[in-house]
Amino acid sequence: MGWLPQDWRLDHEMLIDAGGQLQRIRMYPYFDTAHYLLMCLSVRDDLGPTGVAFSRRHPFSCWLSSMLMSFAGSFLSSFLLGEPIISPMKRHDDVLLASIIWYLVFYSPFDVVYKLVKLTPIRVVISIIKEVQRAHKISHGVSYAARLYPESYLVQILVGVSKGAGSGVVKIVEQLVRGSWAPNQHEMLRPSFTTKACVIASILFTLERQSMYVTAPHDLVYLCVVGFFAYFKLAALLLGVTDPLSPVENVICAVLMGGVFDALARAVESTKEAVQKKRQPTEEEILSKEREKELKRKKLSAAAANGSDKKNK
Amino acid sequence: MGWLPQDWRLDHEMLIDAGGQLQRIRMYPYFDTAHYLLMCLSVRDDLGPTGVAFSRRHPFSCWLSSMLMSFAGSFLSSFLLGEPIISPMKRHDDVLLASIIWYLVFYSPFDVVYKLVKLTPIRVVISIIKEVQRAHKISHGVSYAARLYPESYLVQILVGVSKGAGSGVVKIVEQLVRGSWAPNQHEMLRPSFTTKACVIASILFTLERQSMYVTAPHDLVYLCVVGFFAYFKLAALLLGVTDPLSPVENVICAVLMGGVFDALARAVESTKEAVQKKRQPTEEEILSKEREKELKRKKLSAAAANGSDKKNK
Amino acid sequence: MGWLPQDWRLDHEMLIDAGGQLQRIRMYPYFDTAHYLLMCLSVRDDLGPTGVAFSRRHPFSCWLSSMLMSFAGSFLSSFLLGEPIISPMKRHDDVLLASIIWYLVFYSPFDVVYKLVKLTPIRVVISIIKEVQRAHKISHGVSYAARLYPESYLVQILVGVSKGAGSGVVKIVEQLVRGSWAPNQHEMLRPSFTTKACVIASILFTLERQSMYVTAPHDLVYLCVVGFFAYFKLAALLLGVTDPLSPVENVICAVLMGGVFDALARAVESTKEAVQKKRQPTEEEILSKEREKELKRKKLSAAAANGSDKKNK
Repeated sequence: MGWLPQDWRLDHEMLIDAGGQLQRIRMYPYFDTAHYLLMCLSVRDDLGPTGVAFSRRHPFSCWLSSMLMSFAGSFLSSFLLGEPIISPMKRHDDVLLASIIWYLVFYSPFDVVYKLVKLTPIRVVISIIKEVQRAHKISHGVSYAARLYPESYLVQILVGVSKGAGSGVVKIVEQLVRGSWAPNQHEMLRPSFTTKACVIASILFTLERQSMYVTAPHDLVYLCVVGFFAYFKLAALLLGVTDPLSPVENVICAVLMGGVFDALARAVESTKEAVQKKRQPTEEEILSKEREKELKRKKLSAAAANGSDKKNK
Repeated sequence: MGWLPQDWRLDHEMLIDAGGQLQRIRMYPYFDTAHYLLMCLSVRDDLGPTGVAFSRRHPFSCWLSSMLMSFAGSFLSSFLLGEPIISPMKRHDDVLLASIIWYLVFYSPFDVVYKLVKLTPIRVVISIIKEVQRAHKISHGVSYAARLYPESYLVQILVGVSKGAGSGVVKIVEQLVRGSWAPNQHEMLRPSFTTKACVIASILFTLERQSMYVTAPHDLVYLCVVGFFAYFKLAALLLGVTDPLSPVENVICAVLMGGVFDALARAVESTKEAVQKKRQPTEEEILSKEREKELKRKKLSAAAANGSDKKNK
Repeated sequence: MGWLPQDWRLDHEMLIDAGGQLQRIRMYPYFDTAHYLLMCLSVRDDLGPTGVAFSRRHPFSCWLSSMLMSFAGSFLSSFLLGEPIISPMKRHDDVLLASIIWYLVFYSPFDVVYKLVKLTPIRVVISIIKEVQRAHKISHGVSYAARLYPESYLVQILVGVSKGAGSGVVKIVEQLVRGSWAPNQHEMLRPSFTTKACVIASILFTLERQSMYVTAPHDLVYLCVVGFFAYFKLAALLLGVTDPLSPVENVICAVLMGGVFDALARAVESTKEAVQKKRQPTEEEILSKEREKELKRKKLSAAAANGSDKKNK
């Protein structure tokens, strides 16, 4: 117990303090603004090169799309919890702010707002602010669901995720409002890293509420989640890291989702075939056959993938 | 203060009285019948020339479609307000009446009901009766939402609109029930005049409830809305006026939705180009270039429109 | 009153007793297991030959699909009754059991579970167990809705049907989650026999609750419904009887859904044509003309059917 503990304790308290302060920040208007900006941007980018023409021809559909995306988390969690879907529209301030942002993104003179937000430094700052808002929404979603269903951890996690990453699911409806329909390119089929991160954060908050496995104080957990979101957002924006979880996932999928047993089954099958030919196969033969089959299987699944999704290049 | 004030006052009171009486009319069964008739007709017309064959092959799907359209306003507002979606099915009288109307429209001997309703004079009368019912539904929707959310004008307006023009949105589900799917031809993408009129009526009722900007008595406002709906319905049916609001809209779109700034941006751009060519452009050159660009832009947006919608001929 | 009444009375009481015992059986875990097994199987079969590859590539989408189908009845009835959609996820036991079943069906070593369940004897047993669970769900759905809406028989019937045959409707959403979209092949367009049987059972339970038309004790009605479901399931699995109701339906459709009047209208028309030709047509001519028209109409409706559905071969 030399000079370190005191330092560390100080640091610990400082961190808790920082987490507490971060948690008490009001989201409206600055953090919400960043969120609305990015959501309107995503609508515009999703419209592609005809976005400007579309916004001139169908202003109402464009506005509705932007509102759906801006309040996606609230819409989805209201829908799941059986609350009035319209409730996010109750607060005039929020709708007004989101509408102003929508107007600026689509109709600002000389497209100045759009061009500004597209600049990397500004985009990075806005994205980080938005990640803080995301953590805030997940934390609130989990604690809200925990009040309604104190025993159901799964519900708490799902509500937290829907608050934080609802836009991926609501996007299906939003695209429908804009008159496009892409049933095989949605979030549930290929969850993005953001959604996975929301799942992790949601699980963390839920466990922490039960104080069973996570014994750190809530403020510290909150700070860690914000840091986690901000760090990976920065990595994605600046270093192009799209999915840091994919190696872990691939291993899990290979072990649990049939990978090991598929390989075993193939080995057994090739052994059987060889036995049927009335002689013991050499190990080389088994391996080469297995390789062949793997190739075939890959071709088949590639063909299937070509048929069912065009997202992967 | 000669002979006019007394006359006018009498007239005013008479109008208020008429509005009050109009408001107290029971919708069931005559006004609802007109509504159900027009909705079943719209389902049948939407089915096209194969409508009769479809109704013979898929009677259940046909009935469900007709019910969805007949109670579209209630379904949509229930969905938005988080109330049981099934609640419109609670009243047996209504469902029975709507089912009888559905049966008569699709299966009447020698198609006599369908042919009768298609006759212009009968259609006009039914349409006017239906507009009275529409005003009634909007007024009730707004006052119902105002009881639930007294502070949220936007919610009140949206519920009023969904009560009056819900069939446009529910049509997406209704088409799905019938096995067809047209994601780029719905009401939210190209609101019809009826929807816009419902928005206006809804705003009027909401403002009148708050007694801030509309100081006329409620009965008079109600009468005006009914007159407004009936007048434009007549104009649409007899004179072929499809959208009397479109000139106003076009002006608003041109001024607010980027039109002015787009023109400015094009002018600035052409000036810049000329400056880059190291000489002052004549005014004629700017104009001709602008005209050229306008032409190009139109072609592009026409191409985009061809791609995304086939409704406009 | 010879030897028969005593025998019959004993039998009657035995049956009531059996019905009562059947009703008090707990569904969790054995009956629910059968249901989850069949639902996961239906998801896998619906995926077709690429099912295994899909489950390796998109495990989350696959799990969500299976959960949606496993709890389809609860999801649909929650949606209709305005209750939290997420409520079926509240019970951890059920979700865990369904997840284990999902895992076994898709990822079991050497596909052993899938192959076992596909064996006819095992499939028959599981299907019968599932039919018992179906009757249980319908009965509970009707009594639950009757508590909420004691006066609305239609709502009670609809909730019962959605509990028993909700998977047909939820399948649309489930297919969307898997990235496929088939708007013209759903249950509402072509209700399967199971759905129709659920409607009959639901009506029976509803009438029995009101004690107006069905005076048999509830336990006996329950036993009859279970027997009815089990009997027709056996017939479908072993004898290939797909729809025992279709003859009745065809008659009803022919009489009520325009068949008779269509024929009459055609006869009248052909008579009219003949009259216009200034001579009395022979009976033969009328018949031949009618036959010709019938042929034409069939061709037309066949063309329409080809256009709108590819399910019927």
